[in-house]
Formats: sequence, structure tokens, C-alpha cells
Amino acid sequence: MAHPVNERPVIVAANRGPVTFERDERGELVARRGAGGLVTALLGALQEAGGLWVAAAMSEGDREMSTASDRGRIDMTPFGASYGVRYLDIEPDVYDAYYNHISNRILWFMHHYLWDTVRSPAFAEPAREAWSHYVDVNRRFAHVLAEEGERATGSPAYLIQDYHLALVPRFLRELRPEALIAHFSHTSIAGPMYFRMLPDGIHEELLDGMLGADVLGFHSPAWAENFLLSARWHRGIRVDLGRSRIQTTGRDVAIRVHPISVDGDAMRTAAATPEVRAARRELAAWKGDARLILRVDRLELSKNIVRGFRAYEMLLRRDPELHGRVRFLAMLSPSRTDVPQYVQYAEECVAEADRINDELGDDAWTPIELRLREDYPGALAAYALYDVLMVNPVIDGMNLVAMEGPLINRRHGVLVLSRNAGAFGRLGRYAVPVNPFDVVEMADALRTALQMPFDERSRRARGLSRLVLSNPPARWVNGQLADLDRARDRRRSA
Amino acid sequence: MAHPVNERPVIVAANRGPVTFERDERGELVARRGAGGLVTALLGALQEAGGLWVAAAMSEGDREMSTASDRGRIDMTPFGASYGVRYLDIEPDVYDAYYNHISNRILWFMHHYLWDTVRSPAFAEPAREAWSHYVDVNRRFAHVLAEEGERATGSPAYLIQDYHLALVPRFLRELRPEALIAHFSHTSIAGPMYFRMLPDGIHEELLDGMLGADVLGFHSPAWAENFLLSARWHRGIRVDLGRSRIQTTGRDVAIRVHPISVDGDAMRTAAATPEVRAARRELAAWKGDARLILRVDRLELSKNIVRGFRAYEMLLRRDPELHGRVRFLAMLSPSRTDVPQYVQYAEECVAEADRINDELGDDAWTPIELRLREDYPGALAAYALYDVLMVNPVIDGMNLVAMEGPLINRRHGVLVLSRNAGAFGRLGRYAVPVNPFDVVEMADALRTALQMPFDERSRRARGLSRLVLSNPPARWVNGQLADLDRARDRRRSA
Repeated sequence: MAHPVNERPVIVAANRGPVTFERDERGELVARRGAGGLVTALLGALQEAGGLWVAAAMSEGDREMSTASDRGRIDMTPFGASYGVRYLDIEPDVYDAYYNHISNRILWFMHHYLWDTVRSPAFAEPAREAWSHYVDVNRRFAHVLAEEGERATGSPAYLIQDYHLALVPRFLRELRPEALIAHFSHTSIAGPMYFRMLPDGIHEELLDGMLGADVLGFHSPAWAENFLLSARWHRGIRVDLGRSRIQTTGRDVAIRVHPISVDGDAMRTAAATPEVRAARRELAAWKGDARLILRVDRLELSKNIVRGFRAYEMLLRRDPELHGRVRFLAMLSPSRTDVPQYVQYAEECVAEADRINDELGDDAWTPIELRLREDYPGALAAYALYDVLMVNPVIDGMNLVAMEGPLINRRHGVLVLSRNAGAFGRLGRYAVPVNPFDVVEMADALRTALQMPFDERSRRARGLSRLVLSNPPARWVNGQLADLDRARDRRRSA
Repeated sequence: MAHPVNERPVIVAANRGPVTFERDERGELVARRGAGGLVTALLGALQEAGGLWVAAAMSEGDREMSTASDRGRIDMTPFGASYGVRYLDIEPDVYDAYYNHISNRILWFMHHYLWDTVRSPAFAEPAREAWSHYVDVNRRFAHVLAEEGERATGSPAYLIQDYHLALVPRFLRELRPEALIAHFSHTSIAGPMYFRMLPDGIHEELLDGMLGADVLGFHSPAWAENFLLSARWHRGIRVDLGRSRIQTTGRDVAIRVHPISVDGDAMRTAAATPEVRAARRELAAWKGDARLILRVDRLELSKNIVRGFRAYEMLLRRDPELHGRVRFLAMLSPSRTDVPQYVQYAEECVAEADRINDELGDDAWTPIELRLREDYPGALAAYALYDVLMVNPVIDGMNLVAMEGPLINRRHGVLVLSRNAGAFGRLGRYAVPVNPFDVVEMADALRTALQMPFDERSRRARGLSRLVLSNPPARWVNGQLADLDRARDRRRSA
């Protein structure tokens, strides 16, 4: 049964919009669409409902389009779509504080347990000042959402995205007490010890902010549970762990798990372009007869790249027979290169690969091939060819590589998957599981994957592919809309 | 009502014994007693019951005494006491693996959240080898405990101490299924995200090991809760969070909170010696008219010394009036100087104090006085004189400094206390609370403490002193023995 999404308007809020307007070579403003299952899923729901997406302006083109539009609302009809976009124009220093300082350097670190607690975090005045800007941006989002809700016919379903907008549910609730609000976290979520490392006011405002929603969504039961446990320390609420519900002043908040997936058709189409085919031929020639271990990641602290190299090194040292017969291709796209910790980590990754190549390689064979650039067509090409896909994050909200790879792979490749990836919840039974902190277990897993008999590899590869395809992006968004229906029914019957 | 401890024998197991035998200047073996509330409390119970303490031999003297004694059991009567000691003679390399590698470099880091997760832990083969020695030592403890239990008249109460001996309850249970076993953790306890960073087998063996006990004791509700939450991930058991109980195969495990305290009489006696008086006079002269902020700590990663200095620096920068009128005395005793992380952290502490002294001090005034040595008489002297006692650990099982200070202090000094110290559970309401990761809040707390009116300081100081004295060490041990009585009654009625 399809969910009746067109019953009412849908309004999405996210830091980033579904499109960015840029001038093409002829000087015309064109809409460039973002990639990924999230945009696909949300746009699907928006198109059906003729809804609206509210986001921060990313480009001058976004600002120009806003200025030229009716009360800031850009109609996407001329661009072949049936939804609207509204951009918030945020001053660069305010955006920097809200996005870089608070969202990416504090909340991201907290939710992924990335702090070196002996030294970091150490909150001083700049964090407090940045926090006031984060609050301000969240408030501005809420105001626009409330305004758009009043313009809509019928009570809209609000779908608020991610940790950048954690306070929006509360602020929106204050403006529209009857609003139907879902917030979805795309990251992992800190447990209570980590949540409470934030300065007191901030920690409480964050929980309060999220608890303004009717429904809080997470990718994995582990993150939903961490949220419930963190909320247990919060004043004035009642947390029911067994029923995954929180009672706050006069309202119920449902904690729900909706694992997102990738768009199988779109991915397979993207993997069939001449560009990808050419890249695949080139990679196949480079690979030769060797077995291929692949990783595809942002160069991100949580991705566990160095320990992954060490596990591969351990595998090679234990089994010299493998020398020359296996290659590790690490496709790493630069990320947050303005953050010192990321720069340092990138250097460590390169140094570790160089060391291993120096110690174990020879003229004819380089154990690790590092490709440090944004290269999605290259990744799609490599997905087709791997024998082992290594996805070993320290902690990861979901991890889409673990889904993209098996969809595209043609060699019955084996997925080595961290138990701390959100994707593990659904895919774990067809993967070789690893503890990302245990180099020995990761080395064992690589060997297991390389030695796995064909039937077993094939069975697992089919299982992974089936699981990914059985969870189309629309299901993810429809699940949330159904949650909001239930919230509305509960409220009516209360 | 006093607890009837002498109803049955008591057997304590701890890594370290209550005494160490050393040769004095005349070549005689003499027993040197360890300090602290733990030894006092446990010896109290042992003396009443004529019990036994089992520990690893620490000295050649310990080994000699063992060899000379009846089946390894050293009778302490010639040394003016009424209990026995039995030492396990553990080979140096095995002891190193069990104590340094596993207990202090892995379990201590885990329970205190000290890992820099992007890089550590990274478990490789040495950790697994060391773990096998940890298992071995725990098994040997269990064998000796079982043997001594058979020699005892009546079923003894076993009191197993701390994370070094986490597997002893299970091994002892296997040898003596009906044994009454309490295990007490003196550290903080890792929540599930951290516990699961251990290699799979180790993580499970640890939980299994502890769950061999009838009662698991912790210093603070936060650590008991973390244990319950970590255990929820364990197979084959049922965790009842509300009732703080765990059901495992055919048995019930009670999770209990017994905050330990210090021995008030012993401390006040120790603080009245001529040596302490002399040190106090010297310190008082050094201090002059300045207000004194004091910290007394092991130079330990979890103690948060650098952030404490930064908070003091922020206080001084905000209020130049304080320059020359306040002094920060940091008495830091070297700790684990064979562990690279501790050496590096000690260097960072010194560098930070030097920097602040350079930038803010002058010829007449040094903002921070660092004393880097083991100096208990000096600490007792300084306790008497502080205006503010700073106890701001990142995470701390209990923290006895927060109790010793207020017992000895003569100036109605104010306690600034981390919410993450186990001691916060009881003492928090009379302290100025701080989030140890929040430098601003710690700077504010120092100012609040320095500016606090006399009446308020006095009320709080009295409150702290009263709370400490109302919880004598015997209460801590009697609480555990009462737990074991209840466990026995429950078992009989089952």
C-alpha cells in the first residue's frame, strides 16, 4: 500500500538545498542537482505533494533566484519539477559559526566519538559565541518554516534534516504548537557520557530542541538507543526505553528507526555512462590478475583509514604468498580541508600508505594505491571490480558505500563491514563483521573475504543487493510521513 | 545496628596486599602498610573476622615470607594484627602483561574514556598475548581463593577488588558454585560504545567474568548505570535497569552503589604530625596574603590538569585585579612514568604552567607553583590552607582528594568539583559543580569560589566535612557484606 503523501503539503528543511543555482557558460541561471538517496527520497515526496524545500543559500545564484522570486519562494516548474525551494540568506560569518564551528567541529565530533578526551573538547568563549549563531540560524529556519506553513493549504508535514537543525523542532513548535514535525538524524548519536561533554546550556538546549518534534528518526537502532539514553539525563521528561517513547510537557515524542538506502535505478544508470565504462576499462587494465581490495571514502576522521591499512599490512606480513597478487585501492576524496585535524589525518593516511609501500612493495608491485580526489565516476567503476570492499568506520551514521558497492559489483565481491556502521543493522548478516578498533580482526576478515568460496560469496553478494533494492528511498520518507500520521491521530484522540 | 561480620570468614582479593614486606636497616623483614581508606576498610572487616587477604607479591620480602609460611599463608599476629595474607608469586613478564598492559594501558583507558578514538585503541597481536596472561593471573587468583575457601570454617564472603581481577568472580564460581562473591570496581565504568571497542572475545569475557559475582559494587550511580547499559549488549542475560539486577544462567546479580570514603580519624592524626606542621608553616609563609587555589593529583591523564590551568588563566585574564593576589599550587605526583602517554602529558602540564607563568607572571609573582613529587605530608599541609580546592577530573571513579581536603581544611575553603567524579554523587550539593570539558565554566567556578561570602563558604565546608565523616570506611565494607547476606538468603529461598 502506497502511503497517501499527497493528502497534505510536505515541507523539508535541510542545511543544503536539493539544487544549487549557478550561471552556465551562456550566463543563464541553471539548477544543479545534488546527488544521493536523501535528495531523491525527499524530492519524490515533495513532487507528489507539490511541497517546499527550505535551505541555506549556497551560491550567488541561489541568492539571485531568491531575490527574483515571489516572497522568496522559487517555483521549480520552469526547471522541470513540481516543488518549490526557499533559501535563507545567511551572512558568511554567521554561517561559518553555525555550520563549521558548531555543526562540524563540535556536534559531528561528539556524535562520532572523535574527541581525544584528555585534550579535546576544551570549550572556551568562541564556542559560546558560535553557539549563539547556531541558535540564531535555527531560529531563522523555524520562522521561515512557520511562515510557509501558514501559506500552505492544510497542516503540512515538516521533515527537518540532521544535526545542523537540531533546534528547529522546538522553535517551530513555539511558533506553531499544532505542527506535525519529524526530525531525522543522519549521523550516529552520542551516548550520555559524550553528550554531557557539551557545555551545560548547550547540551540541554540541543535535547530540548530535538524534543520539540513529534517523531525523531535515526538510521539504526544503536543511534535511537543512544538518543534515548542521553535523553534520560534530561530534566522534566520521561523516557520509556522499552516502547522507544519520550514524554515531555504535554506531548509524546516517538523515537523511530528508518534506515535510508540508495536509489538502485539511478545508481545503475550512473554506472552505465561512457565515462564510467572508460574508467572501468582503465582500472581493469591496471588491476590485471590481482585481487582487488577497495575502499571509497571521504578523507574523514571517522572512516578509520589508517587502521584499515594496518590490517592489510598484517595480512601481507602473515601471508607473503599474497605479495603481488592483491592490490588495495583507496579512493579518498578530500574533506573539510580547512579543519586542522582533517589535514593532519590526511597526512597520516598518506604516510602510512607510503610506509607500507616502502616496506612491502617492490618495483613490480605497489601494495596500496592511493587516489586522493573527488571522483564519483571512478568510484562507480571501481565498485564493479572489487573482490573485497572494506568499510570499517570507527563509527558511522549509516554508510552508503556499503550499499552502493554491492549494487554495482560484478565479481561477487565480499563486504567487510564495521559493526559500528549504521548500515550494519540491515546488512551485517551478509557481511564479514569487524570491530574497527581491532586490527587483528580486520586482518582476519580480509583473509576470510579473499578465501571465501565462490558459492558463499555469491550468496552473500546476492543477499546484499536484494536488501539494498528492497528498501527504495521512497520507503524511507514514507515511513516518516506515516509516523507523522500516527502522531496526528494520537493527538486527535488524546 | 552493626553488621554481624564475624558470623563467617572474609576473604579479600586485590592486586596489591595491605602490607609489603621489606628488610629494615637491621635486616629484619618488616610489614609496611599501604595508605588509604580501602585498606583501612577492608582490614577492619578482616580483623573482626580473622580473615585473609590474597594479593600479588610486590617485593622479595613478600616472596620470602610466603616461602617461610604454612602453605603460603602468612599469619599477621606477630605483626600485631589478626588476619592472614597470602601472596601469589607471579613471573615478572606475566605480571607486566596482566598489570601494565591489560589493566593499566587498556582497561584503565577504556573505563576513563581516555582513548583518542581516531588513532587508539588499535588492538594487535601483543594485546591478545597480554590478555592470555591476564586470564592466567585471574585464574590463579581464583584457584587460591577456592583453596582458601575450602580451608575456612563456614562459607566465606569473598570481596574481590577492582578491574585487575574482573575475571575472578567467574573462575571462582566455576570452582565453587555456591560461593558468596562480591566484586567492587574502584574506577569509573565504560558505557556500551566504549566497552565494545575491546576485541570481541575480550569484551565478552570481561562481562562474563564480572557476572560470576553475586553482587557488583560501584562508587557512583553513574558507573553502576554504565555497567548495566554495557551488559545489555551481552548475550544470554537479562538486564533490569529499574531494579538494578541482572539475570544470568540460573543466578541473579545485584548491581549496587557503595561510595567509599576516607578514614577521618586516621587522616586527622596524620595531619597532626610535626612533619606536616612544619610543612604547613613553610607553605603559609610562601603563600603570604594571597588566596590559595590548590590541586593535589597523580599526574594522570584523567585528572584534567591542563584544562584546569587554562581555566585559571582565563580567570586571571578577565580580572587583572587578581594578579599577585592569588596563587595556584599544583601538587602533582608522578604516575606511570613508563607509559609514553603519561610522559607526554606530564610535559604538556609543565609546558602549560610555564607558558602561563611567562605570560602573566612577573618578578614578584608566579601565578602557578608546580610541585612534581610524591609528597603526602605536603598535601596534608596544603589541605589546611586552601581557599579553593580544584578537583576537575575528566572522569574519575571516586576521587578521595575531594574528601581529604574538606576534612583537613581550616579556611572554609570551597570545593570546585567535576560532575564526572564519582564523589560528585554525594558531595556535589556542597561543591561548585563544573563540566571538566568547559574551560569557561571552570573559570567561572573559580571566580564564584573566590568571591563566595563567608557564611556560604562556611556552610558548604561544614556540609562537606559532615558528609565525609558520616560515611566511615567500615560502612563501605559492611554494605557489601550485607549485600552478600541478602544474596545468600535469596539463594536459600529460591
